[in-house]
Amino acid sequence: MTASGLGQSVRFTRGSYLFRQHDPAQQLYHIETGLVRLALLTPRGRLITLRLVLPGDYCGEDVLCSQHYRHHAEALTGSSVVALDPARLPAREVLALARSIGTQLRRAMDHEVSLQSGDLRLRVVRYLLELADTPLGAEDPHDRLYVRATHELLAEGSGSTRESVSKAITELRDAGLIETGYRHITLVDLAGLQALLTRQDRQEEQP
Amino acid sequence: MTASGLGQSVRFTRGSYLFRQHDPAQQLYHIETGLVRLALLTPRGRLITLRLVLPGDYCGEDVLCSQHYRHHAEALTGSSVVALDPARLPAREVLALARSIGTQLRRAMDHEVSLQSGDLRLRVVRYLLELADTPLGAEDPHDRLYVRATHELLAEGSGSTRESVSKAITELRDAGLIETGYRHITLVDLAGLQALLTRQDRQEEQP
Repeated sequence: MTASGLGQSVRFTRGSYLFRQHDPAQQLYHIETGLVRLALLTPRGRLITLRLVLPGDYCGEDVLCSQHYRHHAEALTGSSVVALDPARLPAREVLALARSIGTQLRRAMDHEVSLQSGDLRLRVVRYLLELADTPLGAEDPHDRLYVRATHELLAEGSGSTRESVSKAITELRDAGLIETGYRHITLVDLAGLQALLTRQDRQEEQP
Repeated sequence: MTASGLGQSVRFTRGSYLFRQHDPAQQLYHIETGLVRLALLTPRGRLITLRLVLPGDYCGEDVLCSQHYRHHAEALTGSSVVALDPARLPAREVLALARSIGTQLRRAMDHEVSLQSGDLRLRVVRYLLELADTPLGAEDPHDRLYVRATHELLAEGSGSTRESVSKAITELRDAGLIETGYRHITLVDLAGLQALLTRQDRQEEQP
């Protein structure tokens, strides 16, 4: 049994899949530790991150209303996961499920709003700060926050291309707000990054 | 009691609010008939449609995880709604709640994908077809499908401005795909509109 008491957990290594788009939907998944991202592969092969699933969250809710999963679920870090038969979910847990899905719906709506911000640089900043609060965020030996993310991951989660993200990252680095390294980005001026977003709330543009 | 058997329903007229952004979150709402849209007013006064709530759906799920509603809930048509205390929700209904929120999360993720389509004209077409399947859609005396929507409503739901939507609507009208009238748009060539979207799935561009 796991910390959540829901059952036996299974360990997924980084880059492995809990389920894939078009797989038969048979189980709900409760994330105990780690980070899972749900992503859709479009007909032309573009990968779009739909949402991130955090420890304590459920995913695989397609099982409640359809025959197949409509997206991939990929472990972005090593993750402990409990697979559950929705028909055997304890009654007290169904409300926790509704609450988790409700919280994720809220985050999805926040993401909708962010996607409608015209400025890609700010979308990237917002996504970096979001990732910093997940298991992809950590502190270096100098207590500076960093995020383990590639430009590709940032592009897939912010409605952009890798090329545009690289340009935005270079601008943020030149402004002294971040430092970049192999597969990670250090947020050297956290207050400065947050100020960019606050300023945008005031200036907000119409696309 | 209503068709759903959940309790006494209240009638909301078109344009009235079930709740407003920042109101204390106290109740869940089950939509019996009609159409409700959840929309966020940004700090600069821009209104963004977050999602549409259809008959049989729940909204107000903020009550499960926070003190205040984070968006408006506006009746887009006359709507019958049952307000519920989440603590008194019958056990069998909690799973229905999770399923409804899960279905709406799926639609929100579809909307995320649509917002990442670069072509506004296609976003407008996709939104028109979505609205046609809600109580805003109806058939005229010639059995042609029409949608009761203003350009403003289309802009708020497709990540654009009224001016850009008006331009897209004019193009679709000039192409013979739609006809426009006072507060409504007739889908005169439904197959042609659907073909536009299918074609885009094949051609799909990177923004």
